Amino acid sequence: MERLPKFTAAAVQAAPIFLDRKATVEKACHLIKEAGKNGAALAVFPEAYIPTFPYWPRALPHPDRELSLDVYAQLYEEAVEIPSPEVDQLCAAAKEAGIYVIVGMTEREIGVSATMFNTLLFIHKSGEVLGKHRKLVPTFEERCIWGQGDGSDLRVYPTEVGKLSGLICGNNLMTLVKYALLAKGEQIHAAVWPSLGRMKNYVDLCSRNYALEGQVFVIVSSGYITEDMVPDTFSLKKKTHWDVAGGSGIVGPNGEYVAGLVYDRKEIIYADIDLRDIVKNKAIHDVVGHYARPDVVSLLLREEPYSLIQEMKPKGKKELLEDSNGRSLPFNNRAPNR
Amino acid sequence: MERLPKFTAAAVQAAPIFLDRKATVEKACHLIKEAGKNGAALAVFPEAYIPTFPYWPRALPHPDRELSLDVYAQLYEEAVEIPSPEVDQLCAAAKEAGIYVIVGMTEREIGVSATMFNTLLFIHKSGEVLGKHRKLVPTFEERCIWGQGDGSDLRVYPTEVGKLSGLICGNNLMTLVKYALLAKGEQIHAAVWPSLGRMKNYVDLCSRNYALEGQVFVIVSSGYITEDMVPDTFSLKKKTHWDVAGGSGIVGPNGEYVAGLVYDRKEIIYADIDLRDIVKNKAIHDVVGHYARPDVVSLLLREEPYSLIQEMKPKGKKELLEDSNGRSLPFNNRAPNR
Amino acid sequence: MERLPKFTAAAVQAAPIFLDRKATVEKACHLIKEAGKNGAALAVFPEAYIPTFPYWPRALPHPDRELSLDVYAQLYEEAVEIPSPEVDQLCAAAKEAGIYVIVGMTEREIGVSATMFNTLLFIHKSGEVLGKHRKLVPTFEERCIWGQGDGSDLRVYPTEVGKLSGLICGNNLMTLVKYALLAKGEQIHAAVWPSLGRMKNYVDLCSRNYALEGQVFVIVSSGYITEDMVPDTFSLKKKTHWDVAGGSGIVGPNGEYVAGLVYDRKEIIYADIDLRDIVKNKAIHDVVGHYARPDVVSLLLREEPYSLIQEMKPKGKKELLEDSNGRSLPFNNRAPNR
Amino acid sequence: MERLPKFTAAAVQAAPIFLDRKATVEKACHLIKEAGKNGAALAVFPEAYIPTFPYWPRALPHPDRELSLDVYAQLYEEAVEIPSPEVDQLCAAAKEAGIYVIVGMTEREIGVSATMFNTLLFIHKSGEVLGKHRKLVPTFEERCIWGQGDGSDLRVYPTEVGKLSGLICGNNLMTLVKYALLAKGEQIHAAVWPSLGRMKNYVDLCSRNYALEGQVFVIVSSGYITEDMVPDTFSLKKKTHWDVAGGSGIVGPNGEYVAGLVYDRKEIIYADIDLRDIVKNKAIHDVVGHYARPDVVSLLLREEPYSLIQEMKPKGKKELLEDSNGRSLPFNNRAPNR
Amino acid sequence: MERLPKFTAAAVQAAPIFLDRKATVEKACHLIKEAGKNGAALAVFPEAYIPTFPYWPRALPHPDRELSLDVYAQLYEEAVEIPSPEVDQLCAAAKEAGIYVIVGMTEREIGVSATMFNTLLFIHKSGEVLGKHRKLVPTFEERCIWGQGDGSDLRVYPTEVGKLSGLICGNNLMTLVKYALLAKGEQIHAAVWPSLGRMKNYVDLCSRNYALEGQVFVIVSSGYITEDMVPDTFSLKKKTHWDVAGGSGIVGPNGEYVAGLVYDRKEIIYADIDLRDIVKNKAIHDVVGHYARPDVVSLLLREEPYSLIQEMKPKGKKELLEDSNGRSLPFNNRAPNR
Amino acid sequence: MERLPKFTAAAVQAAPIFLDRKATVEKACHLIKEAGKNGAALAVFPEAYIPTFPYWPRALPHPDRELSLDVYAQLYEEAVEIPSPEVDQLCAAAKEAGIYVIVGMTEREIGVSATMFNTLLFIHKSGEVLGKHRKLVPTFEERCIWGQGDGSDLRVYPTEVGKLSGLICGNNLMTLVKYALLAKGEQIHAAVWPSLGRMKNYVDLCSRNYALEGQVFVIVSSGYITEDMVPDTFSLKKKTHWDVAGGSGIVGPNGEYVAGLVYDRKEIIYADIDLRDIVKNKAIHDVVGHYARPDVVSLLLREEPYSLIQEMKPKGKKELLEDSNGRSLPFNNRAPNR
Repeated sequence: MERLPKFTAAAVQAAPIFLDRKATVEKACHLIKEAGKNGAALAVFPEAYIPTFPYWPRALPHPDRELSLDVYAQLYEEAVEIPSPEVDQLCAAAKEAGIYVIVGMTEREIGVSATMFNTLLFIHKSGEVLGKHRKLVPTFEERCIWGQGDGSDLRVYPTEVGKLSGLICGNNLMTLVKYALLAKGEQIHAAVWPSLGRMKNYVDLCSRNYALEGQVFVIVSSGYITEDMVPDTFSLKKKTHWDVAGGSGIVGPNGEYVAGLVYDRKEIIYADIDLRDIVKNKAIHDVVGHYARPDVVSLLLREEPYSLIQEMKPKGKKELLEDSNGRSLPFNNRAPNR
Repeated sequence: MERLPKFTAAAVQAAPIFLDRKATVEKACHLIKEAGKNGAALAVFPEAYIPTFPYWPRALPHPDRELSLDVYAQLYEEAVEIPSPEVDQLCAAAKEAGIYVIVGMTEREIGVSATMFNTLLFIHKSGEVLGKHRKLVPTFEERCIWGQGDGSDLRVYPTEVGKLSGLICGNNLMTLVKYALLAKGEQIHAAVWPSLGRMKNYVDLCSRNYALEGQVFVIVSSGYITEDMVPDTFSLKKKTHWDVAGGSGIVGPNGEYVAGLVYDRKEIIYADIDLRDIVKNKAIHDVVGHYARPDVVSLLLREEPYSLIQEMKPKGKKELLEDSNGRSLPFNNRAPNR
Repeated sequence: MERLPKFTAAAVQAAPIFLDRKATVEKACHLIKEAGKNGAALAVFPEAYIPTFPYWPRALPHPDRELSLDVYAQLYEEAVEIPSPEVDQLCAAAKEAGIYVIVGMTEREIGVSATMFNTLLFIHKSGEVLGKHRKLVPTFEERCIWGQGDGSDLRVYPTEVGKLSGLICGNNLMTLVKYALLAKGEQIHAAVWPSLGRMKNYVDLCSRNYALEGQVFVIVSSGYITEDMVPDTFSLKKKTHWDVAGGSGIVGPNGEYVAGLVYDRKEIIYADIDLRDIVKNKAIHDVVGHYARPDVVSLLLREEPYSLIQEMKPKGKKELLEDSNGRSLPFNNRAPNR
Repeated sequence: MERLPKFTAAAVQAAPIFLDRKATVEKACHLIKEAGKNGAALAVFPEAYIPTFPYWPRALPHPDRELSLDVYAQLYEEAVEIPSPEVDQLCAAAKEAGIYVIVGMTEREIGVSATMFNTLLFIHKSGEVLGKHRKLVPTFEERCIWGQGDGSDLRVYPTEVGKLSGLICGNNLMTLVKYALLAKGEQIHAAVWPSLGRMKNYVDLCSRNYALEGQVFVIVSSGYITEDMVPDTFSLKKKTHWDVAGGSGIVGPNGEYVAGLVYDRKEIIYADIDLRDIVKNKAIHDVVGHYARPDVVSLLLREEPYSLIQEMKPKGKKELLEDSNGRSLPFNNRAPNR
Repeated sequence: MERLPKFTAAAVQAAPIFLDRKATVEKACHLIKEAGKNGAALAVFPEAYIPTFPYWPRALPHPDRELSLDVYAQLYEEAVEIPSPEVDQLCAAAKEAGIYVIVGMTEREIGVSATMFNTLLFIHKSGEVLGKHRKLVPTFEERCIWGQGDGSDLRVYPTEVGKLSGLICGNNLMTLVKYALLAKGEQIHAAVWPSLGRMKNYVDLCSRNYALEGQVFVIVSSGYITEDMVPDTFSLKKKTHWDVAGGSGIVGPNGEYVAGLVYDRKEIIYADIDLRDIVKNKAIHDVVGHYARPDVVSLLLREEPYSLIQEMKPKGKKELLEDSNGRSLPFNNRAPNR
Repeated sequence: MERLPKFTAAAVQAAPIFLDRKATVEKACHLIKEAGKNGAALAVFPEAYIPTFPYWPRALPHPDRELSLDVYAQLYEEAVEIPSPEVDQLCAAAKEAGIYVIVGMTEREIGVSATMFNTLLFIHKSGEVLGKHRKLVPTFEERCIWGQGDGSDLRVYPTEVGKLSGLICGNNLMTLVKYALLAKGEQIHAAVWPSLGRMKNYVDLCSRNYALEGQVFVIVSSGYITEDMVPDTFSLKKKTHWDVAGGSGIVGPNGEYVAGLVYDRKEIIYADIDLRDIVKNKAIHDVVGHYARPDVVSLLLREEPYSLIQEMKPKGKKELLEDSNGRSLPFNNRAPNR
């Protein structure tokens, strides 16, 4: 008789090495290996963990504006490129530990703009990058830091431990985006947050409801940092309210916590996940199966990435002169030249 | 200087007169007037309140099957037709009280099938029917009682107290259906439930999250009944577990309770609603505004009702299928042939 | 507490006065009144009862061909026009008896052709004609007698005793025609037959299945005649095999007989009909309600009558819908761009 | 001179190995080979044969609810995926035996939901899967087990032994669905049932009428199981009424049995089928030919499968994809997809 | 002999009545009439003039966050709906003065979200609304106030005084957006700004270059307000740096000022515009004519507005209505042929 | 901690050796080495520097026409071929100096026509040619000298000192061409001009705006020559107005000069470039990042070179354009045309 798989998941609640990409990547690698040793098959890190979530005010009132631009450039210089040696390092750690890793980072675009993105990186336990997801709508003044992602990376990754995906912070409340992942078969959802004092209600409610509504497991990973971890040389240190208490844990498909939420300390939170629990909850309420009404409502999704430039195909080309059946078109059906 | 409106809403937690349409309608009219006298501008009744939610097991194991068919016919005979004198009575009460009313009922289709629907009726304070909504997916064994609605009644009703709509029980967790209402501008959402002991987590979590995710007010109305209210002559009385404790209240657009949830007693729960709270929450997270990405995800909605029969149009009549702008008409807008 | 209606139905198994319109109408009036006196609220007569079902061979081998043409003319002369004094007479009888009547007849078209139709006439208990239905496909060599009806009379008549309709002989097996009536809410179905020895299996199987499949009551009325009732002067008497044993009765919505089938004698068969039985059967299998899939399959029905002449519409309108090559334009060229 | 084909058909009445996918598949393979050795060219197995039809009550009254969810998960784990190694095994058996096979199974969707379907699998005698059909409307409390199929698999498979298709249980009574198959030319119809004591009337009546109405052969295969075949460890064993007597056989296009119905024992029922009988019956009553009226009634069928997600194609882009006459351009004129 | 038109344009540099929609509209009406009396044929007002540009910090560092949400709601309540009585009032003033008017305002969406937009309203001298344009990308922390427009309103309005359009603040630097207007034939461009001390370089450089690059006239209108105009009751008064010195004027198609820039006072700046100057500059450098290379570079523009909901049209239905080339079928080809 | 690179750039303002290719190349080599010695990492020369920008009137009134044709031939004889020994010489100088070089020249096509192009040559510090760019639209009467380039050379060259590209004279005002370079990630833009008295406004405004709009550094290099440098033997010397005052310098990404503009003397203008300044300006206004709207406007670019002859592909070759799934191949997967 067959049985659905079980495994151990880990929600990592840890502090970065402040605004230092290389050091934070090294710390992340260390934590990945620790989670692997403790039996986890999957580890999830907080939002924008590398090099450090921008907890500071990003749009200072004039005349302090110059300060925020300076810190913008500082973050840009420490942001991660994908691919890059630092990504390779994370992949190597995942391979060594033999676990799947989902880790938040500030990504900078390679080669065109100086725009950064709030990105979640998915790594296979074999050490390959599975893919990445860029936050679709940065929240409130985060829009002064990160650009917007598009629909090309709303993907779900089939793995040995189930189908993985994740969303970042307030994007977990974007109704249609949520459904894009569920409708692709998501089973294990990483919900990553920066953690801010005022967010406790959000994180709890939205994570448990995501699990209940989607009949999935939700691994919640929230940032953690204390004021003493911030160097005094950091220009916005005193202008920032460092209420970053964490809030990480794991929710089952019935909307109840399996572990956590843990607050106010660094910790790797572990929980055993049994995929059979998904089936039992879907027996009554399968939001992408018998409890859906695709005849009445379905999701229209644009997966094509945006591009600043598209290739112009000259009209003079011969294939214009034939219709899809290879028949020559009468002249007056041809597109005018200009 | 302008200001957004405020009003008082009422979540009615009351018992029906068991399986008696006329008597329950009278009781509902009484409660509507009471709510009006107490200053409410809107009253919401529980799921399938008239003539009584089918708390009993609907699909008894063979050889008790005949019992459940008998009770099916009993419910059918007491079910409400729309329109009907009982609906007129409810409308008259709403008019007398001067309040908007949303009330759950088992509706029976007029004239074709013997199929019943789990329906929410929306009544204007002027005494007109605003519309009705049929539950899209009955939950689990409810599928032995009610048929499925379609997308033609996924509507939002603009009123003096804001834009009203509602969903029934587990349908509040149907991701895309939820978005259909939000995207139509819903501000006040009626979430009606039967109330069953095992549902407490559902009702609490899903109602608060709906409010938070949609930045709307949610008026939760759950059924209430005790075993002694059920006549001993009711054939399934002893086969039923009467754990119907209610659970009604009102949630604000930040996901926090304004009033309730109230359990274990009949009560009309009142709360003051200030639409400005919606704006303040939407400042940060407007799921149908600046926090949406309609360029990436949008909702495909079929509003055309289903019909068993469609009119066959002979060739000469082709122009009938288009409006004066040459656009194809939905079937139900077409002029009847004869 | 409300309850669905009950009444008594009558299936009339009787012989006509051979090929004599006036006499057969009088006999029918007599039987209508008898049924009324016996408490029936509805009486159903056999197929083509007036003036007599053409049991004889209608397409004799050449050189006997002339004989069949002669008898065709004889039938034409005795056929019923609608309206006509004979129809008025039937209506008056129905009114006097206070019952609904469904009666089969050979109808001749008024004023244009010499085509006859196999028609079912529906009479209200108030003495008004409700409507008529012409057999859509005459069976086999019947096509030498009757023309084809159209979809304009596929109607269901709401009455005090439920929604009435009916089909003639093999037309009861026309899948889509059957559904046209069911989808219009038919509850009491008249299935009329001529009765022929070889048909027993047909009548039994098809009538019971109609009831089961549609969850309706079926009143089966089959013709009855014996050779001695046929005047020796009738030219085809000896060429005809008079095996017309009847076969009438009433089937409930579970496919079981409530009364009959009665064979080999004239008799009015009565049965009590309780519409609640329809609801109980539809609880499990409502073919036009919860057990239909109008999103996947629906019926395309042409209700417009055929006509030999239609109004010619000048080209000016038509050109709009075609391009210069006479090809129909795609829709999106018709609609304005924005 | 050509002659329409003859062959031997087999209706398999057999018990599964209780809730054991692998063992039941092996048993099915054994029976396929036996049927082949006995000269059959086609074998039909009962509804949901693999891993076992859910004869137990699927929606136990609260507080036994947890039991039914547990058994739901148990069924899910033993349900069949298509494709899968077990399907390959069945195909190999069909190939070895050289016969066509139609077999019922509980299918589980791969990759998105945890929804199961009541599916009929069609296998070519060459060992290829012809296709599958998912029950469109599960009956009564079966809706707590299986989701609904759509119109994409209402197909008829042309083979050496005629055009094959089939419907499951009460779906054989769905008027329009029946016509979808007939109108696609069905000649050999598999009608599969679970067999329950109360169903005898249904199976007999509906199977014979299907044959008569459609002028096709109907192979009836009903489930068979006795209480002693159910392990005592099965949690719902004592709550189930095991009245599963079978009822399998073969009906000719005149609505008469060629073989069976056989009850109360396991058996493979064989019958010789001569397609010429279909022609002879259609001479008088061809429901999809001369006895149809497509000018008045036809079937509107949606064959497109439903999907939770659809590709968004912005109109702005679409204009690019069409020439000025609104015709789609050949693909190589379009901008690169990614 | 024909001659290209000449007229007088007015750049209005004025202060609003602080956060008071009605009063600011009245003041705007007064200024419109004044400009008309002074001979202007077109008047341009600053960005977001009604009810007042949000000069204050919009995303205050936590824990002052609540303050900014409060002020968000205050702005929302004073924002303009289009259409609305205030828009009618502006139109009436334009009609009375007989001049074209372009005026910036914070618009609030009617009926769905609580999202605001930074909108430019275009009014015909006849008192009709020509159209509106919503800022496409709000700049930096403005993203905490306004949503993003789409391409549906990138329009150019042909009038008696030339083809008018306009862009808001930093959007004047969006290369492709600029070209969308130029390529539609823009001749008179309204460039509206809030005016902030740090922006002087931007406004001057970008406005003159726009004129030079596009060979158009640019009417620059920047906001003006002094601290004493802000009521002390305004909660963010002391947190704001009120360096709003204005900077309005008119540039010719050679990139040289015809009038202004005027700073540090309220004033309506007038200048005579001769459209012949456009032709003279385009002789050498016509960016949308002989100096363009549409064979090498052209603009891909999405003019379709975004929508949260789109109508679902099942393919099954559409296929029925179109042949494989997307052409509409005459009706009798749609029904299955048989 | 990482930091973005800094380097020194040089704008060369120098005179050619009049209409003498070899001598001017030698002078250029000398200047390249001087710039290298002074620490520059990149040097930019003026438009058409080699052999001399055609400052003279190119289209003399008839009957002086023959004169201009003669001078056309003279220029043709001194024009540069690419590749050629002179290009090798320039490359060798760049290699010796170890700097990147961008230099303007009149190029003559090799082998087919007698057409010349106004070309910018890009040389790697390793001595390799990076590429060349031909002016897309010669300005006004320049069209009597040079042909038009195409889109195949609108490239951006990644180097150690950033991503380099450049445009010639009025082409810097071609909105879409500008965006082609920016969207490819340009960071250092060479804007080369001939320098003519009437152009001062152009050069200043357009260079500063290019920097501001694109958030790039702009290195402005304008020609310089005085009448005494022109041999009296040059037939058009007296017909020419030698007002060539130069105007070279370097602008930062905020639109402010870092160095220059220098007029009226030969000089190599140096400035330090810090790429971090780009990031700080892009924080607020990244025209190819967060401040772009590729969903609304994007650039359609034809990069395929024009050719007089193309291979004719008979219809049978159509499959070349499609992959094995019948999907059109993206252009770059196809075999090159030439």
